Amino acid sequence: MKNKNRLTVVKIGGNIIDNPLILQDFLIDFTKLEGYKLLVHGGGKLASKLAELLGVTSTFKEGRRITDEPMLDIAVMTYAGLINKNITAKLQAMQNNALGLTGADCNLILSKRREVDIVDYGFVGDIIAINTEILIAWLHLDIIPVFSAISHNGKGQLLNTNADTIACSISIALSSFFEVNLVYCFEKKGLLSDIENEDSLILELTPGKYCELKDNNIIHSGMVPKLDNCFMALNNGVGSIRIGGPQVLKSNNTIYTQITQ
Amino acid sequence: MKNKNRLTVVKIGGNIIDNPLILQDFLIDFTKLEGYKLLVHGGGKLASKLAELLGVTSTFKEGRRITDEPMLDIAVMTYAGLINKNITAKLQAMQNNALGLTGADCNLILSKRREVDIVDYGFVGDIIAINTEILIAWLHLDIIPVFSAISHNGKGQLLNTNADTIACSISIALSSFFEVNLVYCFEKKGLLSDIENEDSLILELTPGKYCELKDNNIIHSGMVPKLDNCFMALNNGVGSIRIGGPQVLKSNNTIYTQITQ
Repeated sequence: MKNKNRLTVVKIGGNIIDNPLILQDFLIDFTKLEGYKLLVHGGGKLASKLAELLGVTSTFKEGRRITDEPMLDIAVMTYAGLINKNITAKLQAMQNNALGLTGADCNLILSKRREVDIVDYGFVGDIIAINTEILIAWLHLDIIPVFSAISHNGKGQLLNTNADTIACSISIALSSFFEVNLVYCFEKKGLLSDIENEDSLILELTPGKYCELKDNNIIHSGMVPKLDNCFMALNNGVGSIRIGGPQVLKSNNTIYTQITQ
Repeated sequence: MKNKNRLTVVKIGGNIIDNPLILQDFLIDFTKLEGYKLLVHGGGKLASKLAELLGVTSTFKEGRRITDEPMLDIAVMTYAGLINKNITAKLQAMQNNALGLTGADCNLILSKRREVDIVDYGFVGDIIAINTEILIAWLHLDIIPVFSAISHNGKGQLLNTNADTIACSISIALSSFFEVNLVYCFEKKGLLSDIENEDSLILELTPGKYCELKDNNIIHSGMVPKLDNCFMALNNGVGSIRIGGPQVLKSNNTIYTQITQ
């Protein structure tokens, strides 16, 4: 069987987006990555800041923003507009053939508005399908897809969609065609057993250890869906997953959490 | 010599973008167009409205907005974000494989920041080059490019760029590969000899008539660069140009201005 080409899917969070110097340094590291690559970015503080300026109130339930119509517009403006296109322009300046995207473009990420159970999350999408055909064609043309955390329902409605989940779903969908390495880059050096102590880095997380840390309430709240995503990705063909800080892509960096089976 | 395939490049202005019902009707007509197609949209009132809400002052010189940094951010948010991605999602819902773009994406429109002469227009770009190769490949895959009025300078800087000029430049660049029809869709039925009277439609505008109307100050201000663009396009390979209102794409519509050589 032919060896599959390597694809690195990188998700960056607000800590990188909100700081121009850290973003610039990160994009240089991203540029140096070998093989095919794809970037997914979250929103950072810009959406909340704009909402505040416009007098739109943000509410959160279980770590997720409730997306009413004004908040969706703000998310689309900041994520798909300001952040996405500035990252695209910066990557182009570094000779990467970046293409800024939402899930509506070429129907790349089809979602379903989350059903109202106890909480109505508003215009939030749960991913149904990834259009792999066009992504594969673009990657083979050395185009670097840059995804913002916006998808659509195929009926004309944009939907706010978790960036971690987008990175995970794309990684799984492309793992039949590429050897996929998934990298989550966030505000800590990796997964910490004591959130106040950067020296408490967990270098390797196995499913057994994950259960133990959840049971002892060391891993909780926002980290749980993130890590559930990681183990689901490993169980569905993704080759390797790491979680680290802004330095995670540096070639000599060994400080991160490796998620293993 | 092989016949070239037909490509219709359509530019829509604020009158269509600002009204959801007119936009919906327009997009249905656009969907029905046969052959390859490409859409360019302006900004409408959203940018000015957002600027007002945020307390950012808009100034205009010679019909063009002065784009300082806060205004550029607003343009990117509204043009490349909110408007572009909503139009893309709506076109997808009508089974068009739309792809929302700026000039930074895949280096599609490379610009140069306008030099400061008497007026500093700020972050405004004058187009240097269109990346036709990738556009042609996408059109042949039945992808419909949807351009917002944002380009980049190749050095990481986004630039506000006139949508009429984008439509014109893309039409000229693609005219070696397609039989290009360029359609400008704006708030009037077409070019009027009396701006207050919708019955004064000029059905056909030749270069001679254009000079005459300019000399008599019947055509002036904002229409002059638009029409200069049109005649430049006709002189550079574009097959046909019409200027009309929101109904211009309807198959039975005969009320518009045809620009001829």
